Amino acid sequence: MNQRNPKSSDLSSTTSVAGQPAPVAHLIQEFTRLPGIGRRSAERMAFHVLKASPEDAMRLSRAIADVKQHVGNCTICNGLTDLEICRICSSPDRDASILLVVEQPKDLIGLEQVGTFRGVYHVLMGRLDPLGGVEPEDLAIQTLLDRIDDPRRNSREVAVREVIFGLNPNLEGDTTALFLADQLTSRSVEVTRLARGLPAGSQIEYASRAVLSDAIEGRQKM
Amino acid sequence: MNQRNPKSSDLSSTTSVAGQPAPVAHLIQEFTRLPGIGRRSAERMAFHVLKASPEDAMRLSRAIADVKQHVGNCTICNGLTDLEICRICSSPDRDASILLVVEQPKDLIGLEQVGTFRGVYHVLMGRLDPLGGVEPEDLAIQTLLDRIDDPRRNSREVAVREVIFGLNPNLEGDTTALFLADQLTSRSVEVTRLARGLPAGSQIEYASRAVLSDAIEGRQKM
Repeated sequence: MNQRNPKSSDLSSTTSVAGQPAPVAHLIQEFTRLPGIGRRSAERMAFHVLKASPEDAMRLSRAIADVKQHVGNCTICNGLTDLEICRICSSPDRDASILLVVEQPKDLIGLEQVGTFRGVYHVLMGRLDPLGGVEPEDLAIQTLLDRIDDPRRNSREVAVREVIFGLNPNLEGDTTALFLADQLTSRSVEVTRLARGLPAGSQIEYASRAVLSDAIEGRQKM
Repeated sequence: MNQRNPKSSDLSSTTSVAGQPAPVAHLIQEFTRLPGIGRRSAERMAFHVLKASPEDAMRLSRAIADVKQHVGNCTICNGLTDLEICRICSSPDRDASILLVVEQPKDLIGLEQVGTFRGVYHVLMGRLDPLGGVEPEDLAIQTLLDRIDDPRRNSREVAVREVIFGLNPNLEGDTTALFLADQLTSRSVEVTRLARGLPAGSQIEYASRAVLSDAIEGRQKM
């Protein structure tokens, strides 16, 4: 049995909720804040923690704290990193003359898992959404322009020659891409965007009109 | 931006996994150990933690640690508690002469959420499963008999007059109930079990044979 102390670190009261000690009720409540986690899942997760060895539970507790303490954004590309400049920006194996612009760090990770892109990234930290109050100055647009205008601001001080838009294929992503394209016309960089069309493995029968329209418009020579 | 330190507390290496800093990969891995959490959910949860305020993230981290440090089993009933003896066992509002025997602390919590039972509990910490190697001595059976035989061992030193089996309605639960009933025949306590029958809100059309059989056998006067 564990050592017990009725005062837990951030609970002023230890009132029991229907047979649940306060720290258990509190953990369940914290788990329900996670995305996609409802009451039942949170309860299952809390009981798993209760049953787990103290070592396993503390490893999870520490992993959460570690992420907040040791992970931040790369000062060049805004990608997640536990260093000042991320491994992609500092790698001599990457072609820093090609910038792939994405909305979120998780888009970077998704693209990186494919393993075929050999350039570097620029994470905007969002997308333009005038109705939602997200304006150009809320995004990392100025630092993107700085990287293009001044090679010393880019990864490994390489001059940028191509900017690829890897924004989400929806209204906000398209709005953002159009805005950025406008900023880049006066600059001598090639501007491209990720291909749109039928998703691999899908069936035309079930494809939406927007997908089919992209597929027809962007048809490729065989 | 957060302060960063390339050495995190329990990671010997900070190797990047496809663009993910090691602490992020590590957190995702820890989340996938939770029940019902797959790779995608774990990634979503990790990104939520990354985006959350440091206070929110630390509250989750601490809630996990707190549960392990402050919650144990009641020395009388084995229910979860942050005290030596749980609030149910020590409450003068509960009738300690009626013991409801359950398999797991979470069964206790489920029954307690109904709010109608005014007796106390006894958690066996499992069910008999000879094939799975769970024998009577692996469960809290002796302490149950002690509570019945000696009022001083029971909640608030009250003599037990009724034992209700609240075991799961399946092979292992029934085996356990039969074994316990056998132990209790020589003792002057009433022995009952939770009612079985049609689950409220269900449709007879979809009920299994076992449910219908229980419903017929246990039919009640109106």
